[in-house]
Amino acid sequence: MPELRQDIVTGTWIIVATERAMRPSGFSKICTAAAVETKECPFCPGHEITTPLEVFAIRPDDTEPNSPGWLVRVVPNKFPALETGEKAGESTALFPRRGAEGANEVIIHSPDHNKNLATMTLEEVALVLRVYRQRYRANSEDPDVRYVHIIVNHGREAGASLEHSHSQLFGVPLVPPLVQQELAGASWHHKSKGECVFCRILREELEAGERVISETDGFVALAPFASRMPFEVWVIPRLHQESFDMISDGRLDDFAQIMQDMLARYREGFDDPPYNYYIHSAPCDGSGYEYYHWHVEMFPKLTTLGSFELGTSMMINITTPEHAAAYLGSGLES
Amino acid sequence: MPELRQDIVTGTWIIVATERAMRPSGFSKICTAAAVETKECPFCPGHEITTPLEVFAIRPDDTEPNSPGWLVRVVPNKFPALETGEKAGESTALFPRRGAEGANEVIIHSPDHNKNLATMTLEEVALVLRVYRQRYRANSEDPDVRYVHIIVNHGREAGASLEHSHSQLFGVPLVPPLVQQELAGASWHHKSKGECVFCRILREELEAGERVISETDGFVALAPFASRMPFEVWVIPRLHQESFDMISDGRLDDFAQIMQDMLARYREGFDDPPYNYYIHSAPCDGSGYEYYHWHVEMFPKLTTLGSFELGTSMMINITTPEHAAAYLGSGLES
Repeated sequence: MPELRQDIVTGTWIIVATERAMRPSGFSKICTAAAVETKECPFCPGHEITTPLEVFAIRPDDTEPNSPGWLVRVVPNKFPALETGEKAGESTALFPRRGAEGANEVIIHSPDHNKNLATMTLEEVALVLRVYRQRYRANSEDPDVRYVHIIVNHGREAGASLEHSHSQLFGVPLVPPLVQQELAGASWHHKSKGECVFCRILREELEAGERVISETDGFVALAPFASRMPFEVWVIPRLHQESFDMISDGRLDDFAQIMQDMLARYREGFDDPPYNYYIHSAPCDGSGYEYYHWHVEMFPKLTTLGSFELGTSMMINITTPEHAAAYLGSGLES
Repeated sequence: MPELRQDIVTGTWIIVATERAMRPSGFSKICTAAAVETKECPFCPGHEITTPLEVFAIRPDDTEPNSPGWLVRVVPNKFPALETGEKAGESTALFPRRGAEGANEVIIHSPDHNKNLATMTLEEVALVLRVYRQRYRANSEDPDVRYVHIIVNHGREAGASLEHSHSQLFGVPLVPPLVQQELAGASWHHKSKGECVFCRILREELEAGERVISETDGFVALAPFASRMPFEVWVIPRLHQESFDMISDGRLDDFAQIMQDMLARYREGFDDPPYNYYIHSAPCDGSGYEYYHWHVEMFPKLTTLGSFELGTSMMINITTPEHAAAYLGSGLES
């Protein structure tokens, strides 16, 4: 029997319809992260000149900007979705528009074309997350930016246009709808229950245990009760902090550990699937968001959104989170 | 330069980032509607016994139910997303759930495995739309159903699991979030401007002309100003009616004409692409929705949603609606 489940944070109902389900092995036949063909990869060392000029890099040997020698490199997206500059065309009452002010950066994870976050060393992953924090802070200070959205699309089917492992940062000039929904729910919960909803989810999920996948000193990875996608995972810090950039140096290493652990479980569980993840964090517009609790949401790309999901904004998930947690948390454990 | 555009109905902002754009020919290389392999198609005549028992069919020769001789056949989905029956597991404050009560039917368009809505005769398409209306009305009367959602997923990449051309009807036990958003916007517009927002869009778009693709006596097909997807099209009836099932017999033929025209333009323009469409209509819960205006939304499946879209609920569209209208409205015109 299908079942409706409500996400306590956003209030959104999703449909869990497991009669449509496939075994994990069935999924992995559908979809493995396709290599994106690139004759000459613009993200590889030696090709620095083919990208826009770098805005940040980790260069231990103090090499010249836009030359080889970097470990992590950040450049503006050559085809930006958001960009501070000229104004948009004329708005009318019925057709409002504005410039897509903001920023869109690419964070190249490694000089090695063939490494990714699941196969890099823990130190290399930690370095990438350190760069996340640096770029998050730098972009927060841009007066055009109200929200910083950091993401990975791994594999073409997940939206990647280049194979060389990278993240993107979007400096968004408004608070996006999905974040607004989470903020509204978290604020309501905090006011009416006197507690952070994410702290409460952590506590109740750890007590119940059936949806918890992995734990470190500072983080818990779990399959959320109202997962929108098959094998969706939330990585939640135990420490209540509203914004990702508040993370301490020590916790960055711990964050790297759980992120790599989860991405390795996806890799092992679905034979290097395409996947998506993003960080949800408080807006950087100066308002108070103490009730919010930053976290990561991730899912392998195993299914396709159809006209039901796209026409209703309601998801149909064909895998129960309990099954997802059992699969990702079991035999795959190191 | 990318630009932000606001959908005047829902209030949602989308990003138009045409620097990422490809020519239509580039899209069509990415993605053509893949045949879904089926050794023995359960939707073909002679295999009626492999589906759940039919709930409706058009049988001109008065043949037996669940036997060949039908022109359009309706059966419950074998793997329903919504189904009236047993209750769900226990709810808690943090983890609310309920039974996914409702209905999920499959409308098989034709006995011919190789025909689809773009290649069927106009009479055959009109017959399918007549069945839509019949099933819409029948499901509206189900007390579990608050909203009737009729859709097509064409091609595997658009979410179809079987190749044989078919629609699905979902009897949803709540008003879906995206419909709620449209209702809220339409209600606000009607109250504050004294006019239906869709009637106003029609009027202003017909005056401007640059986003209108096709017209019949009763319908207009246009690329909406804040299109979420490349080559998105809305088919809007000129007559203000809140609910699809209010359509008259005469207008059904006209509706068939514009639907087939648009689907044929997709087929010609992108070499039989996967596509999605769905009908947005007023809820059937007995409340008054006179301010609403039913319509169809459709788009070819040319791109993939990534972590930006999935993590923000904000779309990045790489094709301007003006370009989409010019492409779909031009050389392709019959």
